[in-house]
Amino acid sequence: MSNTEPQRIALIGLGTIGVSMAALHLARENTTVDVFDTRPDFEQYLRKTLPIFMGHHLTSDTSKPDSVLPESVVTSLLTSGRLQIHTSLESACASATIVQEQGPENVAFKQSLWKQVESLAPTSAHLWTSTSGIAASIQQGEMSDKTRLLVVHPFNPPHIMPLLEIVPSPHTSTERVEFARAYYSVPGSKHRPVVIKKEIPGFVGNRLAFALLREACHLVQEDVVNAKDLDTILMASLGPRWAGNGVFESYQQGGGEGGIGAFFDKLEPTIQQVWDGQGRVNLVGNGEETRWKDRVISQVNEAYGTFTNGQVLEKEARLKEFVNVQAKEYGHLETEQ
Amino acid sequence: MSNTEPQRIALIGLGTIGVSMAALHLARENTTVDVFDTRPDFEQYLRKTLPIFMGHHLTSDTSKPDSVLPESVVTSLLTSGRLQIHTSLESACASATIVQEQGPENVAFKQSLWKQVESLAPTSAHLWTSTSGIAASIQQGEMSDKTRLLVVHPFNPPHIMPLLEIVPSPHTSTERVEFARAYYSVPGSKHRPVVIKKEIPGFVGNRLAFALLREACHLVQEDVVNAKDLDTILMASLGPRWAGNGVFESYQQGGGEGGIGAFFDKLEPTIQQVWDGQGRVNLVGNGEETRWKDRVISQVNEAYGTFTNGQVLEKEARLKEFVNVQAKEYGHLETEQ
Repeated sequence: MSNTEPQRIALIGLGTIGVSMAALHLARENTTVDVFDTRPDFEQYLRKTLPIFMGHHLTSDTSKPDSVLPESVVTSLLTSGRLQIHTSLESACASATIVQEQGPENVAFKQSLWKQVESLAPTSAHLWTSTSGIAASIQQGEMSDKTRLLVVHPFNPPHIMPLLEIVPSPHTSTERVEFARAYYSVPGSKHRPVVIKKEIPGFVGNRLAFALLREACHLVQEDVVNAKDLDTILMASLGPRWAGNGVFESYQQGGGEGGIGAFFDKLEPTIQQVWDGQGRVNLVGNGEETRWKDRVISQVNEAYGTFTNGQVLEKEARLKEFVNVQAKEYGHLETEQ
Repeated sequence: MSNTEPQRIALIGLGTIGVSMAALHLARENTTVDVFDTRPDFEQYLRKTLPIFMGHHLTSDTSKPDSVLPESVVTSLLTSGRLQIHTSLESACASATIVQEQGPENVAFKQSLWKQVESLAPTSAHLWTSTSGIAASIQQGEMSDKTRLLVVHPFNPPHIMPLLEIVPSPHTSTERVEFARAYYSVPGSKHRPVVIKKEIPGFVGNRLAFALLREACHLVQEDVVNAKDLDTILMASLGPRWAGNGVFESYQQGGGEGGIGAFFDKLEPTIQQVWDGQGRVNLVGNGEETRWKDRVISQVNEAYGTFTNGQVLEKEARLKEFVNVQAKEYGHLETEQ
């Protein structure tokens, strides 16, 4: 497909992720967004929340503060027809080229939804689920055509965070995968879609995060460090490192001319010792293996409490700056060699 | 101590980490740096490398490119006496208030060095090792006063990367720990020292990194994703997230009003499923458990090759920008609430 071909996206389920996704789609040219949600105050909620996400997305000048757009932006979008609020799944899907759901993480709900969507949307429409945990191969259980559905897993908040994990089921067609990848690869966009080759619990991003989280919980349980200091350590080292270089790339560089192979050879005793001693805390189970939970939760509550809206906006503004730095070119340094 | 009290730092071992550490100390006021290394072309090497690290460190205006200072900066430092090159350990340590070593990661070398330093440096001098793997309690094996030595583990490159892990042995005095913490907590500095409560292999930063690395190697081995795409996933999600928020803080926010406890409750099945299925690849051993190595190494070599000096400078400039964003205040967002 051409990246600028008009698309009509039916969004089903407009919680925080859904509204953020609506902002993402509306920031593109040539899109119409049809929204459907069962909450009673839906239009009022949309008028309040959408301008917040769109304000972030539309500000690309980092010298200016992010702004919350006026609520009138929603009126304009509704008047022009670029945004359409629906009261039935049927009308939302009727003309869709893409149907994307952000509904509850519940197998029965998703299977039933896709069975309905299959009969309501045009047969050419692409079907995307934003699930973080229910594979497309499970969601498509009641569908007759299993080639159309795939996971497009965003990272929170999707209008800022570049990653989209595209995870096909074994039945999804290659064309459907390629369409999704191309859709999120618009020139100038900071979004980075990555196709995962196989379905696996947690996909890739969360598997990496949960591996680190497990060791973090273990270190707090063993009183090596408290939760807040552990966060400081992460932010003062691995966070900025991995914002600029992947884990493999970092160690390839760390190994010098011998690359990551030389790094493994040099660090072998330390790495193996760490791997042998990794914590095996669990969330499910009794007694010893879950006793870390109270300690971690109380330390984290004490360190951070509940975040105010202002703090969340500040964190999002900072996140957006990191993403902007990632996209920056450094031509002058190349010429200095 | 007062943070602006004059300090005289003897640096032993001036490889890349040592020169970067020299730049860090010289960027402070009221410091004198005595350097000792056994390489034959030491002065020539220092004249060439130190200006590169100092150029990075002294540029705080992010709108200007980082610059490599002229070699004459070393001549000025030598003339003024702020930097002194020594040809013996004895003279380097003679007037030190701090002795810091970045020598080979070798137990015999370190034990012998500290035994000598103990007899050469003033008894008040603080003794710091930059080791990433050999605990202070092992290094101090041949010392008679075991209260003085502690680990100050930097992350590469130390003149940019904020983290310093301060890891005392069980014998290190509280005063020595507090001095090191205070020394690196100068107002205006972007460095963030964190005290680790117990010695443990890999300390905290590398334990977290190696936990994630292990799962990364497992996912490449299982052909869920290739090495370069895994790096993209990390850079497009967890890197920028953890540059702005620690792992606990992120999930505290992700859990909404219920905080990290609510997050654990909601994600329990997925997290436990991921933990149960985590990879157990090893570096040491035979056959199956190490077969991932060839695959990972060849994919990483193919993806990145060897980095040019220009690429390394570019990565460092970007890293520095992330650190600058971390230090930024967002007052305008607080007032918008």
